[in-house]
Amino acid sequence: MSKSSISFILRLKLDKKTASFGQIATVISSAGGDLVAIDVIKENRNSTIRDLSINIHQEEVQNRITAELRKLTGITIQQTTDRTFLAHSGGKIHIMPKIKIDSRDDMSRVYTPEVARVCEAIDENVELAHDYTIKKNAVAVISDGTAVLGLGKIKPEAAMPVMEGKAMLFKQFADIDAYPICLDTQDPEEIITIVKALQPTFGGINLEDIASPNCFSIEERLNKELVIPVFHDDQHGTAIVALAGLLNALKLVSKPIKDCKIIVCGIGAAGMAITNMLLKAGAKTIIGVDVEGALHCNQNYDRPGWNEFAQKTNPKQEKGKLCEVIKNADVFIGVSAPGLLTKADIKKMAKDPIIFALANPNPEIKPEEAKPYAAVIATGRSDYPNQVNNVLCFPGIFRGALDCRATEINDEMKLAAAKAIASTIGEEELDAEYIIPSVFNKEVVPSIRQAVIDAAVNTGVSQIEPE
Amino acid sequence: MSKSSISFILRLKLDKKTASFGQIATVISSAGGDLVAIDVIKENRNSTIRDLSINIHQEEVQNRITAELRKLTGITIQQTTDRTFLAHSGGKIHIMPKIKIDSRDDMSRVYTPEVARVCEAIDENVELAHDYTIKKNAVAVISDGTAVLGLGKIKPEAAMPVMEGKAMLFKQFADIDAYPICLDTQDPEEIITIVKALQPTFGGINLEDIASPNCFSIEERLNKELVIPVFHDDQHGTAIVALAGLLNALKLVSKPIKDCKIIVCGIGAAGMAITNMLLKAGAKTIIGVDVEGALHCNQNYDRPGWNEFAQKTNPKQEKGKLCEVIKNADVFIGVSAPGLLTKADIKKMAKDPIIFALANPNPEIKPEEAKPYAAVIATGRSDYPNQVNNVLCFPGIFRGALDCRATEINDEMKLAAAKAIASTIGEEELDAEYIIPSVFNKEVVPSIRQAVIDAAVNTGVSQIEPE
Repeated sequence: MSKSSISFILRLKLDKKTASFGQIATVISSAGGDLVAIDVIKENRNSTIRDLSINIHQEEVQNRITAELRKLTGITIQQTTDRTFLAHSGGKIHIMPKIKIDSRDDMSRVYTPEVARVCEAIDENVELAHDYTIKKNAVAVISDGTAVLGLGKIKPEAAMPVMEGKAMLFKQFADIDAYPICLDTQDPEEIITIVKALQPTFGGINLEDIASPNCFSIEERLNKELVIPVFHDDQHGTAIVALAGLLNALKLVSKPIKDCKIIVCGIGAAGMAITNMLLKAGAKTIIGVDVEGALHCNQNYDRPGWNEFAQKTNPKQEKGKLCEVIKNADVFIGVSAPGLLTKADIKKMAKDPIIFALANPNPEIKPEEAKPYAAVIATGRSDYPNQVNNVLCFPGIFRGALDCRATEINDEMKLAAAKAIASTIGEEELDAEYIIPSVFNKEVVPSIRQAVIDAAVNTGVSQIEPE
Repeated sequence: MSKSSISFILRLKLDKKTASFGQIATVISSAGGDLVAIDVIKENRNSTIRDLSINIHQEEVQNRITAELRKLTGITIQQTTDRTFLAHSGGKIHIMPKIKIDSRDDMSRVYTPEVARVCEAIDENVELAHDYTIKKNAVAVISDGTAVLGLGKIKPEAAMPVMEGKAMLFKQFADIDAYPICLDTQDPEEIITIVKALQPTFGGINLEDIASPNCFSIEERLNKELVIPVFHDDQHGTAIVALAGLLNALKLVSKPIKDCKIIVCGIGAAGMAITNMLLKAGAKTIIGVDVEGALHCNQNYDRPGWNEFAQKTNPKQEKGKLCEVIKNADVFIGVSAPGLLTKADIKKMAKDPIIFALANPNPEIKPEEAKPYAAVIATGRSDYPNQVNNVLCFPGIFRGALDCRATEINDEMKLAAAKAIASTIGEEELDAEYIIPSVFNKEVVPSIRQAVIDAAVNTGVSQIEPE
């Protein structure tokens, strides 16, 4: 198979009365696929299950074929096996012993009877768990499957591939041993009980893809009740990387953050976290906008956190829709929905407008549409410049927190992480299309780590000072 | 350092008023140690903390030195670092990605955006979790730290080295990815809630070192409420390996199990599990003995499970102490306490008595003491022949259960495992000192696996038939 040719396998269930194999073959070839093999998997009187091996030259062709096949009568796509599915076969991580057990002598050292002395030592002084167990490098990646990627609530089993992917990234970028755990409960009290009970095993907790408002109460309670750091990446990871990008964008347009009018569009978990980070970084004028328009103090809101949000933002109590309050804004940060921002909106903004259109996968405005009017544009997508990608943050922030045995990841540490990410791009390299470093930039993790350790030491939440 | 020289480091806290360094040096040298270095770690007006590096030629010398030092005034041993502790440094397992992420293309396949398609596929058909997540090879090793080795109840953090050791053995012997989890709760309802919530992530649950009676209710409830297999190794692992050894011992003395009078001494979790396995294997006459003597139906017991135990054992309602009911017994199996069995007891037994003195680390009778009177002797120790070691069982039984996706590990599967272990020693190899295979015998795991799969299929608890 040449490099440009991709092979995938479709398992189809065909109703013998209604499905037409001719139609299937036509759909595949006219979409640009080459049907190279057919295997009968199961056959009975009414239906047949067949594996179709198809060669294609572009990954889009696969989506086209499956979309077209779904329109045909009598056909169910039971399974799609392609490079992505093959990469997931049997899961993406495994557990490896650090030492091989070759003899009775080896076994007696890592297991009974010698292990008992290590157990006793830890039982006498529980701090030794950091020396003699996996704890100091172990992070649990925990989800209840309620807000996974753009998919919303899915089964906890179905959320595992994301958590496993995260564990891979933790290892590859920061040498952290993260274990994915998807919970079969959506009850916040139960989740809190479970995570608390897991504390002896882990040195940190990465909450992931938990829907609002539960993500707030779960994180808040765990932060209070655990002595290991807890971090909801969907909120704070996004906020930290967005702030990092904004700090660099503001350097380009020479505007201090304290003088900027910033619109945050979409006041969910991510929008609130971004706003908190902006305030921490010195922003004075932030206006939150959601379906009801600009949030302000003269109204009472039902949505959790909105009243507190209104208290600390919108100092001039501006009211109205996005198209109204965006007038003279310096920065637009969207974590909302596709197409919410128009060219006309951008034209109303102050000189050199900065647009962070972070809705995923489809941004609030297409970068190519915004480009003629904006000074800097960032999105959540990898196929445009300036991707706001959480992968830039979580490996480094946990590496720092674990290494100084921080009891929490506080705002100062988050701010330090954002500044560290921003600083990996030198002033002379800065460009409208390069405000955020690549996730493969090897300076990012060590730089965040050191900044986070310094901030933890300064705020008194570190328990040891690493070399 | 020559191979025969072992180095270890003692961290001592010395009270400046009462401790004498001369005494310390004398103790070390007269015990056979060579004090090669002293480092001051911390010093204040009243005390000093020092690291003493000591070379020794035998591991026992270390125990002698620490024991003698503990007798001196003004000295606290804060830490001992030796080969065992070094092997535990930073924990004994780590998480490895199966694929390296080298490019954006790689990342987009194992993480966003491509991972979303895998999530969607699993959400539509949750069975696919076995194909595309770690589930099918993942076992949680779960403890609450209440009955760890011979140490009893210790802090959950302190139980971690045992669970990590177990994870190493799972990987090394059966290529199973086991993750150690020590829970900060001893409440059975909470433990049940937690393990149930973990089900999406794991393909099996190995309960470990949970004290009776909680271990009974936890395992029973989880067996009922989970669709993945649950196995309390301390009960069933011990029972399976003990039965394996007994089946071979009985071949040597040519006695059918149904005709044997068997004394089980110590009716805790392990004793009950052993009795159940013996009954399942065809034993008809089992007498359970505990502190109150032989258990029988004419008495009412408070201890959980004892009345049910009495119902199914002791058919002739024998009463009395161990030294009474042991008369004419063919087999003694002890899971009780050191020294409970005497030479005089063995002399009262039937011809060719079989003694399994499994109390750990000190057996019910020393093998050298029993030897003149017994036909076969087994213990739980690695320094005598015929070690009843759980490591022989859990890797293979889980390998079988996972590979056929069994919904439980039932009695038939346990019995099949015991027979498989026994059968790895051929009739011609069988010897009074070789009734149990070595844990390094490479035939054990595949042989258990196949027997367990066959039993699972026959009893209808398998969900797939592996190749």
